[in-house]
Amino acid sequence: MLSRSQLIEQIKQKRTFLCIGLDTDIDKIPAFLKEYPDPVFEFNKRIIDATRDLCIAYKPNAAFYEARGVKGLLSLIATQQYLPKDCLNIIDAKRGDIGNTSDNYARAFFDQQNSGMDFDAITVTPYMGNDSVTPYLKYDDKWVIILALTSSAGSKDFQYLNTGEGFLYETVIKKANTWAGADRLMFVVGATKSTEFTDIRKHAPDNFLLVPGVGAQGGSLEDVCKYGMTKDCGLIVNSSRGIIYASNGEDFAEAARAEALKLQQQMQQELEKAGVI
Amino acid sequence: MLSRSQLIEQIKQKRTFLCIGLDTDIDKIPAFLKEYPDPVFEFNKRIIDATRDLCIAYKPNAAFYEARGVKGLLSLIATQQYLPKDCLNIIDAKRGDIGNTSDNYARAFFDQQNSGMDFDAITVTPYMGNDSVTPYLKYDDKWVIILALTSSAGSKDFQYLNTGEGFLYETVIKKANTWAGADRLMFVVGATKSTEFTDIRKHAPDNFLLVPGVGAQGGSLEDVCKYGMTKDCGLIVNSSRGIIYASNGEDFAEAARAEALKLQQQMQQELEKAGVI
Repeated sequence: MLSRSQLIEQIKQKRTFLCIGLDTDIDKIPAFLKEYPDPVFEFNKRIIDATRDLCIAYKPNAAFYEARGVKGLLSLIATQQYLPKDCLNIIDAKRGDIGNTSDNYARAFFDQQNSGMDFDAITVTPYMGNDSVTPYLKYDDKWVIILALTSSAGSKDFQYLNTGEGFLYETVIKKANTWAGADRLMFVVGATKSTEFTDIRKHAPDNFLLVPGVGAQGGSLEDVCKYGMTKDCGLIVNSSRGIIYASNGEDFAEAARAEALKLQQQMQQELEKAGVI
Repeated sequence: MLSRSQLIEQIKQKRTFLCIGLDTDIDKIPAFLKEYPDPVFEFNKRIIDATRDLCIAYKPNAAFYEARGVKGLLSLIATQQYLPKDCLNIIDAKRGDIGNTSDNYARAFFDQQNSGMDFDAITVTPYMGNDSVTPYLKYDDKWVIILALTSSAGSKDFQYLNTGEGFLYETVIKKANTWAGADRLMFVVGATKSTEFTDIRKHAPDNFLLVPGVGAQGGSLEDVCKYGMTKDCGLIVNSSRGIIYASNGEDFAEAARAEALKLQQQMQQELEKAGVI
């Protein structure tokens, strides 16, 4: 569990705001791992061991585990339990349903006694409004990360609709910020729209933003920081494939470390440039 | 698997358009079931045995199973495998993510070889647009059921925003109907807004609408039918708690049947009134 002040402290200490996305696909991991009883967990474990000093968050993507049924869920549970406690444990689940259903999703990801998992934060989709977000906030110190602006082509379908008071994603941010403070709410903001960070910061001056799409999806870290960084950093930038699949050989964990180190070094520069450290 | 024509045929044969929501909460099922190795599956099995001639769909809500970790997933898999093939097997999962993630959710719920589950249809949230819907459509004959208008208080937060061409939920329906036909796409439309069915039918004249909220949540079946029914019926009306928790005793399955029968009889009247049968 990391509170806001603890998260900021971790960022300053480690000189990084990197999140490593564990979108672990059993068909993409090195073949030699298949000999282990749980190849996906073995892969994640080695990635974590090789990178934990270079990042402040890990983010398994639930879909990649759910695709494998019970085996996948066991890999996810083992992974969550192995994740370092000084990193934010984010489940990328993009859930969104009414109150009593969200209560159950909260149990699934936040309540170890029920499900075996104790994540610190969950990504949530806002379409169903307030009901779909508040149940997660009943857990003290847990975070909700609401989809605002995403970086794929489909984001244009609805997120850019004009609601009369700006784009839909702006309305989402403004409304959600009436439900909880910046110590509990973050937003997903796609990095391919870095100039839009200026507008987003008007509505979310203090919230941490979880930024996917730097690296494999082509966003520029420099631009994201130029327009999105705050005095507390305020950014968690994710990289998944660019790190975890840096090599397909026996050296995959070292190769992942090398990629994570490059990003950590760039991030340190940005933190220094902005005077955060 | 039920194609559109097979679904319509089932509705006419069984004289019902009832979906039974399996929102099965282990804390709410009769105590005597706790002696069984999988109490939740045992509960679902008896509900299914008691009601399968009165409904044309079953809809387990993923959250209630996920909340219990591996045990819950095993209950869900066993339930899906037990569901009658002449009923639409809907997973109420409300997923919504980019393409390669949605590919994995599709494997989780549509691909028995990967996950153990072979649902016919999945509920999906539209916020991330086209990318979050089309991966499910790669599976021939599977259905995607997109959230349009929901019935909880939070629906007012975003679904009723005016996008310049109507409410957001109308824009969702219009846009989604350009991605696939009424043989592959349905919409979730909350029953507490029955007069709005008239507007919805302008944009979705042929799509089946999955209507939650009749019964426990207070919608009127008569109003839903008056404004939403088409010549092919075009409605799947869900009831969860009102049926499955009709009794908490040993007679729970009979009590569930009695509630389902009441709804089936009302539905038969509506089908006759509209000339569908």
